[in-house]
Amino acid sequence: MSVTKNISVLGATGSIGVNALNVVRSYPDLYRIKYLTAHSQADLLIEQALEFSPKAVSIGDANQYEKVKQALPEVEVLSGRNGLLELAGRDDVDTMLNALVGSAGMEPTIKSIQAGVDIALSNKESLVMAGDYINGLLKKYEVDLYPVDSEHSAIWQCLLGESPEDIKRLVVTGSGGPFRTLPIESFINITVDQALNHPNWAMGRKITIDSATMMNKGLEVIEARWLFHLPAEKIDIVIHPQSIIHSMVEFLDGSVKAQLGLPDMKIPIQYALSYPRHLKQDWEQLDLAKIGSLTFEAPDLKKFKCIQLAFDALEEGGSVPVVLNVANEEAVYRFLNEEISFNAIPELITKAIDAHEFVEHPELNDILALEQWTQAFIKRS
Amino acid sequence: MSVTKNISVLGATGSIGVNALNVVRSYPDLYRIKYLTAHSQADLLIEQALEFSPKAVSIGDANQYEKVKQALPEVEVLSGRNGLLELAGRDDVDTMLNALVGSAGMEPTIKSIQAGVDIALSNKESLVMAGDYINGLLKKYEVDLYPVDSEHSAIWQCLLGESPEDIKRLVVTGSGGPFRTLPIESFINITVDQALNHPNWAMGRKITIDSATMMNKGLEVIEARWLFHLPAEKIDIVIHPQSIIHSMVEFLDGSVKAQLGLPDMKIPIQYALSYPRHLKQDWEQLDLAKIGSLTFEAPDLKKFKCIQLAFDALEEGGSVPVVLNVANEEAVYRFLNEEISFNAIPELITKAIDAHEFVEHPELNDILALEQWTQAFIKRS
Repeated sequence: MSVTKNISVLGATGSIGVNALNVVRSYPDLYRIKYLTAHSQADLLIEQALEFSPKAVSIGDANQYEKVKQALPEVEVLSGRNGLLELAGRDDVDTMLNALVGSAGMEPTIKSIQAGVDIALSNKESLVMAGDYINGLLKKYEVDLYPVDSEHSAIWQCLLGESPEDIKRLVVTGSGGPFRTLPIESFINITVDQALNHPNWAMGRKITIDSATMMNKGLEVIEARWLFHLPAEKIDIVIHPQSIIHSMVEFLDGSVKAQLGLPDMKIPIQYALSYPRHLKQDWEQLDLAKIGSLTFEAPDLKKFKCIQLAFDALEEGGSVPVVLNVANEEAVYRFLNEEISFNAIPELITKAIDAHEFVEHPELNDILALEQWTQAFIKRS
Repeated sequence: MSVTKNISVLGATGSIGVNALNVVRSYPDLYRIKYLTAHSQADLLIEQALEFSPKAVSIGDANQYEKVKQALPEVEVLSGRNGLLELAGRDDVDTMLNALVGSAGMEPTIKSIQAGVDIALSNKESLVMAGDYINGLLKKYEVDLYPVDSEHSAIWQCLLGESPEDIKRLVVTGSGGPFRTLPIESFINITVDQALNHPNWAMGRKITIDSATMMNKGLEVIEARWLFHLPAEKIDIVIHPQSIIHSMVEFLDGSVKAQLGLPDMKIPIQYALSYPRHLKQDWEQLDLAKIGSLTFEAPDLKKFKCIQLAFDALEEGGSVPVVLNVANEEAVYRFLNEEISFNAIPELITKAIDAHEFVEHPELNDILALEQWTQAFIKRS
């Protein structure tokens, strides 16, 4: 850890990006920011660039290019989808943090691997949509991919020093979201505000709805499958409303290792940058005696149909997880726009999966074409 | 793990020894029993020797030597304290499992290290009484010492692959024993039967009483101090009545790793022999959804005075932990004989510590002399 790492942060103005920059700020000798990108929050991107002096930035919303360029005369400024992909493909960084939201984050992951840059991956959609393809690229380009999701970071930490052959199963924990105890009959009346009110985690809007439908757990199971090279039968979900145990690994002798912490993304974000070390931080300490009780229950697959959809998609394989992911994303946005009901989310996903043309081994072009097809399908459904 | 390990089991007929032989039985290609010793259960020792064909056995009770010798004409048979020490010092084994009870287990640990034999240590008294001295020997003879206690095995598993400099603290969990919720006023009336009725763990009589007084946690803190080279300030205790989380490690970034399992010594016993691998066993699987709830509370140092005595002994250092351990052991036997009350256990320990002649850096001779002095002191108190 004595050499300074050059870091690019894609999605720098979201909650993951902001937390990552807090880590960089507290260890200026260890990390140097090389590239920053933002979707539309130009003011925050400018502020970040003035503080961290990156070599280049990119703003997704091309209408704000001039504003950013004028505020940062010394910095190379790019814009739009092309600007993002261009910076994702630069090879003069050690680690790219992909904190982009949704399926838009997949191509930047691929560009970065092709540039030989290690990836700290918060964008789970990359692996959900193209896990097999990306694993092939990681091998080909000898690139490491580190998880940022708290669940996958927990599993990764538990596996440190262990032999992969000794794993019996992974246990992904989930809070159960805001509707864990709501009767299924009331799901029809769920409002956007209710769904955005997550009990434990402060996150972006899209992932918060995914937590409410529990599709988030389903996507995490698919992500875990590709990150840890294990079949779906070896990945279980347990509901743990307090979100203190972030996930677990059970070994062949029945020994279980778990990673715990307060529900805050700071720890997994920093760990993805500091691995295999734990850098000192004076963040609030976990006090189990104060918390008192950790509870666990089996997930309710009848209420949370998205979980079963994800397991089914993993079993069917091929193009199904691509459609699952994109259909979910578009359905969530339609729900957030109050165009469809909460219950319509899994219904639309099922319709899209049933309607799409199955591809056994989708290549990048197939995935991008399916993405477009699915977006259009959900928009008109 | 492809080469067969030669194992000696000291204390083969106790619960730890019997479990260790179950492990050996299930992996006959990996382990071969070379030596077995028993305190007084000659019949079981004979049975074990007939099954595992050791090179030699030793029976502690010299009166039973003839019986054992006649039953095992092909086997070298020793007896008494000298027989135990002789087998502990043999150098033709890879790992010695020290499953002896109490301070009597310390010298065999030392003999084994001097013979260059790695140790799987269930006898926590070895490190409580002579931790500093033993650590010096381990370094000198380049011998590894692996913990068997569930708490220390948990910490050891959590530390796999981690940098010791990254540890913030260890959190040793304890069930709180049978008197966790009993009001302090009722401690005066505690009977032997009540104290032997442990809620979670099936163990020997001495350690079960140590769990009831919670001296067991105190001894474990001292053991952890020497096993993991950390000062007492970095070792905390949390009460966890379900005994599912066996202990934890908190790192400098606030990440906490825990090892979990059903409360059964089988896992840590096997792990001490199979490290760093987890060998497959079809033991009952941990099902957190079925268990439902894990609870935590701070230890009550007023009710369980032995915990504070142990922390104080660690701080005072030198000969104090020796006297603490031996005085506790003798007081527990007097309680089991119904000669003293439950509350008298910490009182007698305090008296012995106050009365003994302090030695700053006790050598083996000092420790053995103090052991005799303390035994006599408690017997006449």
